[in-house]
Amino acid sequence: MNRMTLETLRAYHDSYPALLNKTYLNYGGQGPLHQDSWQAILQSDRHLQAEGPFANRVFPWLNEQLQTLRQELARLLGTTADTIALTDSVTTGCNIVLWGIPWQAGDHLLISNCEHPGVVAITAQLARRLGVVVDRVAFWPGCDDEVAAVEAQLHPRTRLVVLSHLLWNTGKLLPLEKIVEVCHRRGIQVLADGAQSVGMVPLDLPALGVDYYAFTGHKWCCGPAGVGGLYIRRDRLPTLEPTFVGWRGIHQTPEGQPAGWKEDASRFEVATTAFSLVAALTTALRIHEQWGTAQARYRRICELSHDLWEQLQGIEGVTCLSPVPPPSGLVAFQLANGRHRQLVQDLEAENILVRELLFPASVRACVHYFTLPQECDRFVTVLKQWLQDHP
Amino acid sequence: MNRMTLETLRAYHDSYPALLNKTYLNYGGQGPLHQDSWQAILQSDRHLQAEGPFANRVFPWLNEQLQTLRQELARLLGTTADTIALTDSVTTGCNIVLWGIPWQAGDHLLISNCEHPGVVAITAQLARRLGVVVDRVAFWPGCDDEVAAVEAQLHPRTRLVVLSHLLWNTGKLLPLEKIVEVCHRRGIQVLADGAQSVGMVPLDLPALGVDYYAFTGHKWCCGPAGVGGLYIRRDRLPTLEPTFVGWRGIHQTPEGQPAGWKEDASRFEVATTAFSLVAALTTALRIHEQWGTAQARYRRICELSHDLWEQLQGIEGVTCLSPVPPPSGLVAFQLANGRHRQLVQDLEAENILVRELLFPASVRACVHYFTLPQECDRFVTVLKQWLQDHP
Repeated sequence: MNRMTLETLRAYHDSYPALLNKTYLNYGGQGPLHQDSWQAILQSDRHLQAEGPFANRVFPWLNEQLQTLRQELARLLGTTADTIALTDSVTTGCNIVLWGIPWQAGDHLLISNCEHPGVVAITAQLARRLGVVVDRVAFWPGCDDEVAAVEAQLHPRTRLVVLSHLLWNTGKLLPLEKIVEVCHRRGIQVLADGAQSVGMVPLDLPALGVDYYAFTGHKWCCGPAGVGGLYIRRDRLPTLEPTFVGWRGIHQTPEGQPAGWKEDASRFEVATTAFSLVAALTTALRIHEQWGTAQARYRRICELSHDLWEQLQGIEGVTCLSPVPPPSGLVAFQLANGRHRQLVQDLEAENILVRELLFPASVRACVHYFTLPQECDRFVTVLKQWLQDHP
Repeated sequence: MNRMTLETLRAYHDSYPALLNKTYLNYGGQGPLHQDSWQAILQSDRHLQAEGPFANRVFPWLNEQLQTLRQELARLLGTTADTIALTDSVTTGCNIVLWGIPWQAGDHLLISNCEHPGVVAITAQLARRLGVVVDRVAFWPGCDDEVAAVEAQLHPRTRLVVLSHLLWNTGKLLPLEKIVEVCHRRGIQVLADGAQSVGMVPLDLPALGVDYYAFTGHKWCCGPAGVGGLYIRRDRLPTLEPTFVGWRGIHQTPEGQPAGWKEDASRFEVATTAFSLVAALTTALRIHEQWGTAQARYRRICELSHDLWEQLQGIEGVTCLSPVPPPSGLVAFQLANGRHRQLVQDLEAENILVRELLFPASVRACVHYFTLPQECDRFVTVLKQWLQDHP
């Protein structure tokens, strides 16, 4: 982030309407919409209704909207648009990959114990329907060396490792490049869940070597709910099988019959979706870029979370999940009194939004690059008061 | 439709902003948004940003939005909300069913030759990945008895029949109840594609007996693109296997682990999607209801299409696909000069929107219950002039 006056920061912060009436620390759940993203939705709807909605002149415009978003996402991830499939959520991206591997019964899949329940549910269904064996590697509690932990759980028949790049509970950034290296040495592919990393951490996916990277636009990117994506390493395109398919992923004959997949990752896109929201994510990504480089934004996030982590660690009855300042905007902590749900509810009543985590039982506060220092201060002050009232 | 003055009809027609600047005859492609549906999107976004976007107080509101839509859709289909899964498109609904059958290699599936290329693509991929044999029944050209045609193509190993309730080319409404009866007698299930029927034809799905019925909200219902649904007959819920899954379809343990499917059809819903659009479809459905019963609206559609069909049949060089007035709002026709694409483009240049169909090569004009008679007249007048200029 550029060094700026507090007034500039405040003005920028306030261009996210959701931030006007509250202390918002839930970026890991969902990011707020910038007023320009909001306008982009209105403009898309207006354009669609004025020109169509269904018209020949609308289709090129629509394709351009989709392709522009793929390009912006690709730029954010250090890759090219042909490796990006647009989806509605991280979970859909994980489904595409997990159902796209040509599994044999008895094949193994390794997943960490810090994954989202939705992703865990997919692997459970793979086990039930296809006879895939699901192994677990524990990143919590107390894992100092995730590379060794993953390696220790690999089985001769492991074909895929599924893990979050940035753990949604501890806020730890995994050494993904090294994990990928260990896996690839054995011919094992890696699917990373980038729910918490995309839009927060500077990324170069080709350099990481990861095979698949699922993400969403509605958390750290501050896009609308319902627009996300999946990165597929170019050389994996021919071997990952499409499962849910539709008109967006295929070519057609002059008689309107399917005629093979699109050459790029869009073969994994299905059909009509919330097209009017696409430009809002494109706009959101451009606003971040105008504000500062990915590196500068990430640096600011870590500065803020470092401060917050230190303040929280200094409070009696509070223990942060991470033993060190997390290299991310996620700061989760446990209360000695265990009343996490109560705290979240009571804070929400004062318009301070944090969330409860179930594993491990804790409360998570998130800071973005445009979080105001006084927002963290307010949260800490109210938390201290609450702890005095709820010893 | 209530009998009304032309002024009332005009005012109602004009409450769809897309209809203000054109002659819109593409309802089978996409319906226009009513101004109140548009407002519903804005209100949802405003509510989400004011209260959250991610907050404990938002979740009950969100669940209510989803459940209200399931209820409204259920009412439209003569069923109950527990049999409705929300999706983003018809194609996604078809994917859920087609990948949810526990196929054995060598099982057969029967699909008509008038299905959408996206749906055909799913069956081709089932054939490739799972060894399912895909048979075809020809509804075009010239099928007078679809029940017999389907029956003639059933194989001892046929497990599922896939067909459109209302054919998107000829506008013919299939005798679905009888087809289902023939199939069920042999233990074969039926998936109907309701892309063109839902929002146009009065429906009682339980009475039809159909097992699965996929549909969208953005065509005849006039909802936003990206919100649709899938009906699953209650007794099929336990045997249809979820494929793409996520947090919306599962229960969770207190530790945030998956703990079984939701009891109702929402088990087939995945994760975050375009939540801000949900209320727009609910609003659209209520507006239609206020306007008149499903029967009255359908009657009006058939009146208008009957007139249009007759006018078109009377033009030299024009032949309607349907040999009788279609029992629907879809009126497709072929030109003796074969220049369908040119006609569509030239009409679009005059802001008359119809679409080209590829199979059979034709042009399709659609009328909704609020289509103005003078819109059809304008289209016919311009078409006649065009034919004089392009003999």
